[in-house]
Amino acid sequence: MTLPAFADVRDAAARIAPHALVTPVLRSDRIDALVGARFVFKCENLQRGGAFKFRGATNAVWSLGDDEAANGVVTHSSGNHGNALAMAARTRGIPAHVVVPDGAVKAKVDAIVAAGAIVHRCAPTTAAREAMAADVQARTGARLVHPYADPLVMAGQGTLVPELLRQAPGIDTLLFPVGGGGLASGCAIAAHGIDPGIHLVAAEPEGADDTARSLDAGERVGSFTPHTVCDGLRTLLGEPNFHVLRDHGVDVRRVSDEEAIDAMRLLWTELRIVVEVSSATVLAAALRYPERFAGRHVGVVLTGGNVDLDALPW
Amino acid sequence: MTLPAFADVRDAAARIAPHALVTPVLRSDRIDALVGARFVFKCENLQRGGAFKFRGATNAVWSLGDDEAANGVVTHSSGNHGNALAMAARTRGIPAHVVVPDGAVKAKVDAIVAAGAIVHRCAPTTAAREAMAADVQARTGARLVHPYADPLVMAGQGTLVPELLRQAPGIDTLLFPVGGGGLASGCAIAAHGIDPGIHLVAAEPEGADDTARSLDAGERVGSFTPHTVCDGLRTLLGEPNFHVLRDHGVDVRRVSDEEAIDAMRLLWTELRIVVEVSSATVLAAALRYPERFAGRHVGVVLTGGNVDLDALPW
Repeated sequence: MTLPAFADVRDAAARIAPHALVTPVLRSDRIDALVGARFVFKCENLQRGGAFKFRGATNAVWSLGDDEAANGVVTHSSGNHGNALAMAARTRGIPAHVVVPDGAVKAKVDAIVAAGAIVHRCAPTTAAREAMAADVQARTGARLVHPYADPLVMAGQGTLVPELLRQAPGIDTLLFPVGGGGLASGCAIAAHGIDPGIHLVAAEPEGADDTARSLDAGERVGSFTPHTVCDGLRTLLGEPNFHVLRDHGVDVRRVSDEEAIDAMRLLWTELRIVVEVSSATVLAAALRYPERFAGRHVGVVLTGGNVDLDALPW
Repeated sequence: MTLPAFADVRDAAARIAPHALVTPVLRSDRIDALVGARFVFKCENLQRGGAFKFRGATNAVWSLGDDEAANGVVTHSSGNHGNALAMAARTRGIPAHVVVPDGAVKAKVDAIVAAGAIVHRCAPTTAAREAMAADVQARTGARLVHPYADPLVMAGQGTLVPELLRQAPGIDTLLFPVGGGGLASGCAIAAHGIDPGIHLVAAEPEGADDTARSLDAGERVGSFTPHTVCDGLRTLLGEPNFHVLRDHGVDVRRVSDEEAIDAMRLLWTELRIVVEVSSATVLAAALRYPERFAGRHVGVVLTGGNVDLDALPW
């Protein structure tokens, strides 16, 4: 698989501009004081569909030729990517098939259905998801849009970085969560395409630390059962994503579920926005490793805000 | 008391520009579809301090001469205005005294203390609040900055309107909550200063409907005991505010507490932001009176986002 380059991020930015929002940035004196750093939060929870995923999905959907597009798109997703692909497909008027594992967050599944996707249920394993997606693909001719390993998806996610650097010039560190690695690798390529000196830090739940283990071991950990409340980060790091994160020297920091939940509350209180617990891992990492961020100007990616208000984790 | 004019709103906008945020606007296809209108939500919950109140407080603080300013400012407030005045005073390096009634929302009182104000407790009645503020004023020489009846406060709150109309040209209706009426009168003056044809609609809790009663009666209801979960809207409409709302033909719509709570959840879910139940009365009004808004392009003011996450009302 060819990895995306910075030019692909720039192309993606132009392609998605008519559809995606330029999301706002927010900051907090109190959070800055807690760590001794300057943080700028990029609010992708306020992106269409409530997650950065709309960027990658829209880039993939609008990269297809007309004939290919007519067959639609298919993906497997625990939630936000499925919703994003459904919404992106609707912007082009083509069908979207979404394979949803049992146990996915109800609010996210409801959103996928509301966005007009054809939902296919499967067991909550990576193998079952990929098999079901392949089956749909074979039957319909739909283009598979992988949630994180697709180069078009990675390039699309990376579009938030030039936007953020325009909104907050002088950022010297970029902090984002890592699950499958679509966001992380897109951000790494985009950030170093603009400024090779930017520090890249990824936050990962302790119970789903396959990325930290993979980078430590020098090869991708291919089998791992995650245990974390961060439902958006239970996915294993993808193979191409591993290569990008390794080549760009991404520093992965582990946080506990309790730290992520506390950080989630702090974000809700200080920034007055709804962010998922998976999103809050970034602030948890900043609070746990203040020496890593002290004195720095940090762009922080808040990834999503689709939360079941009847099942808040505190 | 002299009422503010549109020129005062423009002056206020220039005065607060170095300190206040240009808050983002958000929208939702789903909310539009529920009512059959186009809504643009002006997110003053994302303003500094988490409420529009920072605008009026900052305008008042920076309107003072240096000698007067040195004595500080004083106010009585159930929360957001007190916090805003404390923050505004800090931007000028002057003392802020805040009279806080017993029973105020804990998160708001904590924020006032954290902002560096000197807090004075009193009984939860308008009379007790005003007496305590007068006492502080007499002892310190601090300038009283009334939460809603002060012309500088009204003009400051109105600054969100030109900002919103630049962000979302073509708005023909403005929808905001009404409590004491500082926001409502500032918005009325600003909106009609720009376009005398803009419809003005205010949302008010059924259990605190003194504004609706006052406008119906043609004179201000001066005695009334509110019963509503909307803690930011329990204040009686001020006398100058009554005159502004009457003169500008503001259409007041009542909503129940249950409707406000449901609307609050819908805002959290659809816009992924934290808004107070008082703020949500606007969406509750849109959902209860869709015929009032159908086909219109509506600017909606979301006033605040300071919520006690341990005491959510649903």
